Amino acid sequence: LVYFITPTYRRPTQLLDLVQVSQSIQHDKATYWIVVEDASHGSKRVRDLLERSGMLFAHLAVNSPEAPKKLSKQKMKAMNAPRGVLQRNLGIDTVESLGVPGVIYFGDDDNKYDARLMEAIRYSRGVGIFSVGFRAEALYCRCKVDPMTGKVTGTTNRWFKNKVNYAMDMAGFCVNSELVREKHARFLQDSPPGKIEHMFLQQLVEDVTDMEPLLNNCTLIYSWHVKTVVGKPPKPKDSWDPAWKQIRPGV
Amino acid sequence: LVYFITPTYRRPTQLLDLVQVSQSIQHDKATYWIVVEDASHGSKRVRDLLERSGMLFAHLAVNSPEAPKKLSKQKMKAMNAPRGVLQRNLGIDTVESLGVPGVIYFGDDDNKYDARLMEAIRYSRGVGIFSVGFRAEALYCRCKVDPMTGKVTGTTNRWFKNKVNYAMDMAGFCVNSELVREKHARFLQDSPPGKIEHMFLQQLVEDVTDMEPLLNNCTLIYSWHVKTVVGKPPKPKDSWDPAWKQIRPGV
Ligand SMILES: O=c1ccn([C@@H]2O[C@H](COP(=O)(O)OP(=O)(O)O)[C@@H](O)[C@H]2O)c(=O)[nH]1
Ligand SMILES: O=c1ccn([C@@H]2O[C@H](COP(=O)(O)OP(=O)(O)O)[C@@H](O)[C@H]2O)c(=O)[nH]1
Ligand SMILES: [Mn+2]
Ligand SMILES: [Mn+2]
Repeated sequence: LVYFITPTYRRPTQLLDLVQVSQSIQHDKATYWIVVEDASHGSKRVRDLLERSGMLFAHLAVNSPEAPKKLSKQKMKAMNAPRGVLQRNLGIDTVESLGVPGVIYFGDDDNKYDARLMEAIRYSRGVGIFSVGFRAEALYCRCKVDPMTGKVTGTTNRWFKNKVNYAMDMAGFCVNSELVREKHARFLQDSPPGKIEHMFLQQLVEDVTDMEPLLNNCTLIYSWHVKTVVGKPPKPKDSWDPAWKQIRPGV
Repeated sequence: LVYFITPTYRRPTQLLDLVQVSQSIQHDKATYWIVVEDASHGSKRVRDLLERSGMLFAHLAVNSPEAPKKLSKQKMKAMNAPRGVLQRNLGIDTVESLGVPGVIYFGDDDNKYDARLMEAIRYSRGVGIFSVGFRAEALYCRCKVDPMTGKVTGTTNRWFKNKVNYAMDMAGFCVNSELVREKHARFLQDSPPGKIEHMFLQQLVEDVTDMEPLLNNCTLIYSWHVKTVVGKPPKPKDSWDPAWKQIRPGV
C-alpha cells in the first residue's frame, strides 16, 4: 500500500492541480490518497473530487499556524516559511491510526507524477530516494549511486552535504510507515528555510547511505517539481463575474 | 470517436507535459491521439510514450515554416507568431485520410484536461464550444448562452466580436470531421496574432449562434489553458551533467 499524502490550499489553480494529481494516481488500486486541506474544514469541492477518483481516501483539514490575516500566504512564501507541515503531519497521524503498514509518499498538489511512481516505491522498507525533475533551477535533481556498492552517495543538489543537509526534494523520497512509527518522525514547523525535508529525514536515517536508491538506481524520473501558471495573474476586473458561481471547474 | 490532435516541440518540459496529457486521455477508449511533432522526424521518446499509452495513435512530424536558425522559438513566441499550425493541419489531413468520421479536438501539449472531456464532446455534429479555465489573464473564458434560445451569444473574452473575432481559445472548441472535410477548413499560418482560432472557425460557421454549446451549456470546465514552469530557468552549469543521458524522464 502507498499512502499518498497531499497538502493543499485554496487558490485559483487548486482544482486543476488536484484533478491532474488524481488522474495520475487514481488508477493505482493499492494507493490510499490522504488529502489535507490548509483550512479549518474540508471543502465540498475537494471532497467531490476525492469521491469521483474512486480511490481509497481520507479527507482532512488543519490550518497552518500563521493565520493569513497576520501574514499573507504570499508573504510567508517569500519568506520561504515551511508550507504544508501540519498537513503532512496530520497525514502521518492518520496513517498510524489506520494501522496498516505501507509506504508513505509526500505528493504536493502542484507537482506532476507519472502513474508508475506508486508501483516503483511500494516495496521500500526504509527510506527510499529517487531523482526528481526540475528541482530548483536544475533540470533535475539526480541521486548519485555508487555503482560498486549500490549505495547512495549524494545528490546533484548543490546544497547537499551529507549529514549536514540532505537537500532532498519532497517529491524525491518515500518512507515506510513502520519506520516513521518507530522513530516518531514528524515534520518540524521551525525548520530553517529549505531544510524541511532534511529535518524530517535526519530523524529516520543516520547517513545518506542508509537510504535505498529506487527507480532503477535513481535513473528514472517519475515526479517533477513544477508550478502551474496562468498567462498573467488574474486582474480583479476579469476575475469577478456574477456567473462565476455557476461555473463549476469540472468537479 | 474523438480525434485529439496535439502539436508538440522539444523543450525541457515536453515529456512531463505529454505524460500529463496522456494520463488525462488514455483511459478513454474511443479517443484517437494524433501527436504531431514540430520537427523533421518523429522522436523515439515521443513514440515510446505513445506506445505506452495503450491508445489508438498516429505519430507524425512536420517542421514549422520558420527554421529555428532564422528566428528563434523565443523570438517567434514574443512576436506571437502562430504556433502549431502546420502540425494541426497535418493532424486534420490524417483524420481525413483515415476516413472514419469523428469529432476533432485540438489539445495543446501544455494545457491540462479533465478525463471527462472526450465523452462530453464526442457527439457534437458541427462546431461545439465550451468554457476554458485561465484563458489569457482571466480566471476562465466563459461562453455566454442565451437561456431562452439555448444559443451561444458570445464569450467573456474581451476581444470577442461576433463575426469579426470569435476569440475562442484553442482548448474551447471541437469540430466534427465531416464538417471540416466539407468546408476544406485548415489553420492559416498567416493568421494575425491571436486570431488563429478565429480564422479557422470562420471557415466552418457563419455566426457564433451556429456553434453548439457543450459541457452543460458551457458551465463546466474540463480544459485549462496553462503553462508548466520550473522555479527558475535552468542555468547551463546545472543543466549539463554527463549523467543526463542516462536519466530517462520516465518514458
Ligand atoms: O499556504 C499554503 C501553501 C502551500 N501549501 C501546500 O504545501 C505544498 C507545498 O507548497 P508550494 O507548492 O507552494 O511550495 P513549493 O513547491 O514552492 O516549495 C503544496 O502541496 C501546497 O498545496 C499549503 O498547504 N498551504
Ligand atoms: O515552436 C513551437 C511552439 C509551440 N508548438 C506547439 O503549439 C502549441 C501551442 O504552443 P504554446 O503552448 O507555446 O502557445 P500558447 O499556449 O502560449 O499560445 C503547443 O501544443 C506547442 O507544443 C509547436 O509545435 N512548435
Ligand atoms: Mn510546489
Ligand atoms: Mn500553451
